[in-house]
Amino acid sequence: MSAGTSTRPASTDKSALIAAVQQTLVEFFDSRHEFVDELGPVFVTAADSLRDFVLRGGKRTRPAFAWTGWLGAGGDPSGPAAPAVLRACAALELVQACALIHDDIIDSSRTRRGFPTVHVDFERRHRDREWGGDPAHFGISVGILVGDLALAWADDMIAAAGLDPAAFARLAPVWAAMRTEVLGGQLLDIHGEAGADDSVAAALRINRYKTAAYTIERPLHLGAALADADAGLIAAYREFGTDIGIAFQLRDDLLGVFGDPEVTGKPSGDDLREGKRTVLIAEALRRADATDPTAAKLLRDCLGTELTAEEVTGLRAMITDLGAVDEVERRIEDLTDRGLDALERSSATPEAKRRLHAMAVSATKRVS
Amino acid sequence: MSAGTSTRPASTDKSALIAAVQQTLVEFFDSRHEFVDELGPVFVTAADSLRDFVLRGGKRTRPAFAWTGWLGAGGDPSGPAAPAVLRACAALELVQACALIHDDIIDSSRTRRGFPTVHVDFERRHRDREWGGDPAHFGISVGILVGDLALAWADDMIAAAGLDPAAFARLAPVWAAMRTEVLGGQLLDIHGEAGADDSVAAALRINRYKTAAYTIERPLHLGAALADADAGLIAAYREFGTDIGIAFQLRDDLLGVFGDPEVTGKPSGDDLREGKRTVLIAEALRRADATDPTAAKLLRDCLGTELTAEEVTGLRAMITDLGAVDEVERRIEDLTDRGLDALERSSATPEAKRRLHAMAVSATKRVS
Repeated sequence: MSAGTSTRPASTDKSALIAAVQQTLVEFFDSRHEFVDELGPVFVTAADSLRDFVLRGGKRTRPAFAWTGWLGAGGDPSGPAAPAVLRACAALELVQACALIHDDIIDSSRTRRGFPTVHVDFERRHRDREWGGDPAHFGISVGILVGDLALAWADDMIAAAGLDPAAFARLAPVWAAMRTEVLGGQLLDIHGEAGADDSVAAALRINRYKTAAYTIERPLHLGAALADADAGLIAAYREFGTDIGIAFQLRDDLLGVFGDPEVTGKPSGDDLREGKRTVLIAEALRRADATDPTAAKLLRDCLGTELTAEEVTGLRAMITDLGAVDEVERRIEDLTDRGLDALERSSATPEAKRRLHAMAVSATKRVS
Repeated sequence: MSAGTSTRPASTDKSALIAAVQQTLVEFFDSRHEFVDELGPVFVTAADSLRDFVLRGGKRTRPAFAWTGWLGAGGDPSGPAAPAVLRACAALELVQACALIHDDIIDSSRTRRGFPTVHVDFERRHRDREWGGDPAHFGISVGILVGDLALAWADDMIAAAGLDPAAFARLAPVWAAMRTEVLGGQLLDIHGEAGADDSVAAALRINRYKTAAYTIERPLHLGAALADADAGLIAAYREFGTDIGIAFQLRDDLLGVFGDPEVTGKPSGDDLREGKRTVLIAEALRRADATDPTAAKLLRDCLGTELTAEEVTGLRAMITDLGAVDEVERRIEDLTDRGLDALERSSATPEAKRRLHAMAVSATKRVS
């Protein structure tokens, strides 16, 4: 194979990388066909549901960070190792599929990306066919298993990527850390929503593991490990990834309360209705506890309840007036500066620095 | 290390193997400590819950078949490869933990091995601490994530087992097939209970993937692959494993309807109340459809409902009178004979043949 085939994204082209990840995922699912068919039509339907879910994904954020991390550590996109590295990067999308499918059950979400969530889709199939038992429980059961399948196949995709044994050995501990961290972050998240701890520290910890480590730090680390990067570059990537990852989630927290539904695709004030324990909310509660106990009580009582548009507007004003928005914006700016500084001082290639800089800016300044 | 240490089970001693698997699992969980602690107390609690669940497991059936398969293909329990092989065999218990924890959610089971199931345990913690939201949903959410953790850690344990790259490459496709098959079997199972298909063929297919492949065939295959067995021995192991595995599940089906609660530890007639679509039930339905439509309707109407002790007794008599019990006993005998014959004709070591023969008899003739 030569550079420029569908599985060899040019190092500079974002859409080419997205297309190459897509192609790699299609090839993986195709490689499962014979085996899937043997298990019979019920399993084919479930596997197709996973395939559709994964192939509908758009931004390929985690593979993009992993691939760029590999390039920045000297990986050669035209070299013999590139196709295996691309497959390993694309496998992150299968971990993400498990995380999202199971998260949608945990959050009782009915739609994702404009389609019914997996468990809701199977709930409907059950209802349409008038099968026995509770359709909602059936849907959740299938959703659990389809998510498990995604997690198992993520590992299969890594094992079958064609990495040389030394590269696989370098990747394994990073891959292990990433999967444990995202599950840990999700566990912290649901404990947070149950109200176990609404401190800023708890919200930052969730953010650190559920988003920062999983979305940016570990993918970059993974790419660096595959390229056999030195400890200095790995440390710089991880510093950059942690700071930008946390800033990315803080931006998401602001959008979850103040975002324009037309741009974000989520209902206005969604995070307030869901009662998400974000850093923004924790910061508002901390400030209210110190200065205005009545506001603190009102905020705690409203979070996680059905809210009218007027109530959302009132809570937004309260959160802003408490200074929580300014504080979060300040954190985003500090983290972004610090992360970009770590990147600049690193030994990553100039091209990778340029791309990671652009990715960081787009992640922390985005409006959707 | 020398033969006879805690991680080197003597080839002939069943309880020594169980102890060695236990020790290997303890070492794995201990190796996670530092990482688990860093994620904070909420995660420590979840990881401890998984650890307790796994270490409570008793028979270690899958590791025992895998280890015996390896021995039978010439693996040397005193050789340098043995500790890594033992770790790979023990990792099967983590896959099993995921399967059971998620199955207990799917089946709405409240207890397992005399303890609350994982999701019920976390439901209780939520209730005791008077957290916000629905305790049952919280418990299910934590159960989903703890099961995911088990599945991810199963792969981590394989990756960190210390297998040489060639052994790992031989293992990977078998490991992949096994995980997909058990998930496929579970998917077929819940579709079966929803009433999508109550044929004998459908029940046999569930049995094949959910039990036979996962419990006996693939573990043996895995052990053989690790020992670099030839194609003939692998084929013989798989034939033996499929036949004995199906027979094992057919015995379980009989016990699920006719077993003594004092011996099985499950309520009498449990499978009838749960509406499990076993081969036994499918066979009874097939016979009733052909000869006694009223009995067929009664059986279909009663399955999966709350039944009194008298109703259970009546259904048992009906199933017996239809000839379904005799038919299932005949199948068990045929399968056991055929499986043992494949084993005898194989090139497995005499010692392994002896042990596998005993394991087959105990699996297919057991009373609990």
